[in-house]
Amino acid sequence: MGDTVKYLLDESRIPKAWYNLMADLPSPPPPVLHPGTMRPVGPDDLAPLFPMSLIAQEVSTERDIEIPEPVRDVYRQWRPTPLFRARRLEQALQTPARIYYKYEGVSPAGSHKPNTAVAQAFYNRDAGIRKITTETGAGQWGSSLAFAGALFGIEIHVFMVRVSYNQKPYRRLFMETFGATCIPSPSMETNYGRTVLARTPDSPGSLGIAISEAVEVAATRDDTKYALGSVLNHVLLHQTVIGQEAMAQLAMADDYPDIVVGCTGGGSNFAGIAFPFIGAQLRGGRQVRVIAVEPAACPSLTRGVYAYDFGDTGKMTPLVRMHTLGSAFVPPGFHAGGLRYHGMAPLVSHAKELGLLEARAEHQTQCFEAGVLFARAEGIVPAPEANHAVKGAIDEAVKCREEGTSKAILFNLCGHGHFDMAAYQDYFAGRLEDRDYDEGELALALAGLPSVPAGL
Amino acid sequence: MGDTVKYLLDESRIPKAWYNLMADLPSPPPPVLHPGTMRPVGPDDLAPLFPMSLIAQEVSTERDIEIPEPVRDVYRQWRPTPLFRARRLEQALQTPARIYYKYEGVSPAGSHKPNTAVAQAFYNRDAGIRKITTETGAGQWGSSLAFAGALFGIEIHVFMVRVSYNQKPYRRLFMETFGATCIPSPSMETNYGRTVLARTPDSPGSLGIAISEAVEVAATRDDTKYALGSVLNHVLLHQTVIGQEAMAQLAMADDYPDIVVGCTGGGSNFAGIAFPFIGAQLRGGRQVRVIAVEPAACPSLTRGVYAYDFGDTGKMTPLVRMHTLGSAFVPPGFHAGGLRYHGMAPLVSHAKELGLLEARAEHQTQCFEAGVLFARAEGIVPAPEANHAVKGAIDEAVKCREEGTSKAILFNLCGHGHFDMAAYQDYFAGRLEDRDYDEGELALALAGLPSVPAGL
Repeated sequence: MGDTVKYLLDESRIPKAWYNLMADLPSPPPPVLHPGTMRPVGPDDLAPLFPMSLIAQEVSTERDIEIPEPVRDVYRQWRPTPLFRARRLEQALQTPARIYYKYEGVSPAGSHKPNTAVAQAFYNRDAGIRKITTETGAGQWGSSLAFAGALFGIEIHVFMVRVSYNQKPYRRLFMETFGATCIPSPSMETNYGRTVLARTPDSPGSLGIAISEAVEVAATRDDTKYALGSVLNHVLLHQTVIGQEAMAQLAMADDYPDIVVGCTGGGSNFAGIAFPFIGAQLRGGRQVRVIAVEPAACPSLTRGVYAYDFGDTGKMTPLVRMHTLGSAFVPPGFHAGGLRYHGMAPLVSHAKELGLLEARAEHQTQCFEAGVLFARAEGIVPAPEANHAVKGAIDEAVKCREEGTSKAILFNLCGHGHFDMAAYQDYFAGRLEDRDYDEGELALALAGLPSVPAGL
Repeated sequence: MGDTVKYLLDESRIPKAWYNLMADLPSPPPPVLHPGTMRPVGPDDLAPLFPMSLIAQEVSTERDIEIPEPVRDVYRQWRPTPLFRARRLEQALQTPARIYYKYEGVSPAGSHKPNTAVAQAFYNRDAGIRKITTETGAGQWGSSLAFAGALFGIEIHVFMVRVSYNQKPYRRLFMETFGATCIPSPSMETNYGRTVLARTPDSPGSLGIAISEAVEVAATRDDTKYALGSVLNHVLLHQTVIGQEAMAQLAMADDYPDIVVGCTGGGSNFAGIAFPFIGAQLRGGRQVRVIAVEPAACPSLTRGVYAYDFGDTGKMTPLVRMHTLGSAFVPPGFHAGGLRYHGMAPLVSHAKELGLLEARAEHQTQCFEAGVLFARAEGIVPAPEANHAVKGAIDEAVKCREEGTSKAILFNLCGHGHFDMAAYQDYFAGRLEDRDYDEGELALALAGLPSVPAGL
């Protein structure tokens, strides 16, 4: 029994800079386009939504971007997060693999999201902003921005997908306890929300709709900015503290991963763990297999197309090139709420096109099965999103057993499942629906992709 | 903004021994009595319920009781827990007080309970036991034993107070995810449960009834033992890692508490933080004011009598002398579920009689108010139980402001509130009932106290 192996870094080892993959890529990702002009957007186009400091990070190609001291100071509450060797899981699997997991669930909001929420709140506060709008699906992101807003004295208004708002009152309560306001989306508070409700009064909402509403409010009010919890370059950037710490912790173990696994929704926790290792490889370091695991019910990386698309359903955002299922795609009501986005972060998509990572889609019943096995071995109940990474890591560890090879597998346990027990209830009761789409279903939303001039 | 001050100990600093207050008390607590003979119980009387190693700890007067290496090994997953200086709360309160909190919510089950659950599972496993019964109210204890059972390969059967079983399906799911079985109590599985149900078919259950059921099963089956999550000496003993670590962490801060605050239900988290400081004082160390904060709805320490009473409603346990409201006392359905026990740990009761601690009762609306203030300042949403300690600490800090004195206040933040958001919902909606008992109400259950020969 026991065998706990935990690698802890002193708080002086919280990274002093975020790592920017842009600096090491062999080619830059395609530009972001203004949907009216079809020309690359400039900082001024984004200024209604974000403070200039974040816009600068969005387009920066500097490798190391300094983390402001007040952000590191808040990070110190829970960072560096622990890296565990999953010895008890290895024993349960009878695998010669060495499984490590980085545990981001120790943050106040219970996931990796505060890494960027705190940074975004800081830069907004620094620019004099007192109100931020955002959207949330499962609630991990909304909770994190609510936490960060409470610390920096910023009002947070969260458009919460209506079906989650109704089904997850406790997530909402958690945000409200931090002082945030939650509005079920679609709402009557925005033009876009009113349009959707006029058409479909009983709309359950979607992340794409909620983004449109949050963007509309920020774009039309001088005192309000917008914050996104994934997808954008600066958001992925802020998450790279995860991989940088993991690298230092693996050095304590005198080890280096052969395989790095993360789950992907918008792509931020995946980028957080993977980009520092991909970057090291691009700079001549050791080769690493990087695996993105996404839900079969929202398979942007494995079954989407790599094309220009809107980031939201209301078509208010700039156009980004990414793996997308179409901005009109609405996944069915399954529980890995944080992995329901129709597109994939442009930087992750670009890295996939460059062959720097592989992707696979998994069904959620198998992911929960992996998650329960993990919980009983390691004592932590993962978030449904994180179960996808657990599944990916376990599959690789089982392959090691079958092949008789001992590889080092690192995965990101991006959050705990304390607010997601309803999903476990459905799993145990055999109520999780789980099927693959046929091609026709996927073609539907893809038909609505915007047309972009050739050569872009 | 910011100002995070966290005191982390290296894992080599997890205490090597539990601290036993019995060794330093000026007089021993009154003996535990067999209800049939009214004579002190011996180890054999307890053997059907507990392994001998735990019975030995229950009566030990040794100061330091070694923590077995396999238990320390599991502790390493989350211990040493952090000690925080609550600078942001101090700023919010404008107090010259130095407020410190020990955060036990970082454990896999989210509270201090695994400190003893892991120890109890280890000693049972060591004695060859494969099944343990227990009871749970709010679910913190049941979750913790379920976690420990999963690690040590022990089947855990939890009698869960029926009203909680129905109102808190997610706590139940959490236990089941770890592989435990939950039975709503009163149940048809025991003689006592059937008796209660025959009398009151719609009984909501109580902790006292659930204890009777769990004890009955263990007492009547050779392969099964029983575990309790609070009250008993050995349980309090296991929690003393909290106070010992806090003392070392305060030494890092070059500080020592003038005031130590804990919330009290059965008494274990309070003893965990307070006993090492009380012991140091008894051995000639610095004087410390120790404050136990209990709910006004279950005021055993402030309004109970110090008398011999049963630990359960079915009158199956030995008689212990404690501050009690009577074993027939059933508190109303309020939300600090972990603080609903009719009695107080005999050792805590004895220490109060010796003048080593003071007690106060607080209403839950005021406790939630304190908890929300804390959450917005410190970013952690406390469990409803822990809000009582937060309230006690804030009141002392405000007093410092009024008096213009800078005292060091240490409190135990014994758990997070992730599974208790329904209680916050009721608080925000103004639905929390909150009134004092009149004397007549309290006299009712006290009338049923067992009569014990004079001189005992």
